[in-house]
Amino acid sequence: MLVSPRNPLNIGAVARAMANFGFSQLTVAAPYEPHWREAQSAVGAEALLQSAKRTATVAEAVANCTLVVGTGTLTHRKPEQPVIKLPDLPPRLRSEFAGGGRIALVFGPEKHGLTREDLSYCHLFVEIPTSAEQPSMNLGQAAAVCLYELAVRLVLPQAAHGLGNDAADNAKTSAGAASGNLDLLAGVIDQVMQAARYSPASMRRANQHQLRLFLRRLNLSALDARRVLGFFRRVLHRLRQP
Amino acid sequence: MLVSPRNPLNIGAVARAMANFGFSQLTVAAPYEPHWREAQSAVGAEALLQSAKRTATVAEAVANCTLVVGTGTLTHRKPEQPVIKLPDLPPRLRSEFAGGGRIALVFGPEKHGLTREDLSYCHLFVEIPTSAEQPSMNLGQAAAVCLYELAVRLVLPQAAHGLGNDAADNAKTSAGAASGNLDLLAGVIDQVMQAARYSPASMRRANQHQLRLFLRRLNLSALDARRVLGFFRRVLHRLRQP
Repeated sequence: MLVSPRNPLNIGAVARAMANFGFSQLTVAAPYEPHWREAQSAVGAEALLQSAKRTATVAEAVANCTLVVGTGTLTHRKPEQPVIKLPDLPPRLRSEFAGGGRIALVFGPEKHGLTREDLSYCHLFVEIPTSAEQPSMNLGQAAAVCLYELAVRLVLPQAAHGLGNDAADNAKTSAGAASGNLDLLAGVIDQVMQAARYSPASMRRANQHQLRLFLRRLNLSALDARRVLGFFRRVLHRLRQP
Repeated sequence: MLVSPRNPLNIGAVARAMANFGFSQLTVAAPYEPHWREAQSAVGAEALLQSAKRTATVAEAVANCTLVVGTGTLTHRKPEQPVIKLPDLPPRLRSEFAGGGRIALVFGPEKHGLTREDLSYCHLFVEIPTSAEQPSMNLGQAAAVCLYELAVRLVLPQAAHGLGNDAADNAKTSAGAASGNLDLLAGVIDQVMQAARYSPASMRRANQHQLRLFLRRLNLSALDARRVLGFFRRVLHRLRQP
């Protein structure tokens, strides 16, 4: 998943790397340039680029994912979620998501990477171990490195054991709550906060941000998320009764 | 090491990935475009690109290396040397080159990759495990993936144990024969073949090719290579005496 990429050549390069390593579902949120689907750099990945999803927001792009993984360097940011190094991602996914799950790998714009707001939709932050003197990678190269690591150390070993099918992005789960459902829940809780006059209006955006992070720390199952949602809807209904 | 790269943007991208993963010595053999040192894509790697070595031939580029590793896919070639997959390269280098060694990683031109002639200077061929449907990687992305693998699984673990210094390309050995010395030896053996009328002139190029591969299979030490060279020089001297 790419957030606001500026250069269509980079989008094409990401598509090419996805084709190289057997991934197929690309989503581009708020691209800067309208003609990105024609990027010449998508060698052998023209169809993948044509069928890529385009969304207006990060929230929409990851709505059906159960694990959202932000990528980048730690140079100019201090993520509010757990940080792990790329070589440690495959073992972590194997142990925590053995039952499957729909995973999104999120790459920020070329210049500054993911913002704090973008990151609030992520469960995990993955750092590519680069040199302290030159940490900033090209977008297409960063994607190639991440997809290589996942293909070689997560998808291929699972395929060899009959666990995977054609790629990691096809895995499904019944366990984790999808990001979109967490957003739905966060929306209702936000309304409950308003209705209950929980905090001043000036704090609303900061609270929404903290709530998104909090809900992702909980690792709610889909069933639990539905239950909590039902509970808060009931609370909201009560609060709004005259 | 890059052989006849066509697009300067790819050369710059390789330089950027080298800077990202702590490698510093780039050699470009027979580049297609003269102004490659100014490539805009070498973000944070401008100095590395300026100090890159330019050679006319592959032989010259790898002359001071003790292990030359060719890269690519197996789609259109069947290498004459051992083939291993990229994830297996770091353990192999750790076990076989524990004493150090100057290693060259060789990337071919964008369109068709390394030729059979280029490959005859390689001890090993490394395959990046890509999808059968779209095996061909972009040059900058292929380099990023290879350098990531070596940085994370060879250089960093050695640095952590006090074995490495700033990068793999700084390691030195007293053990293996440098590629240039093997070429010197091959040249004398070739002259011996001529002087001894070993085979018809029409076979000379094919014999030279087989000889390059043969000498690399032997894993000669530097000392052994010098001894064998001395021996063949003596033989040649005798053959040429009237």
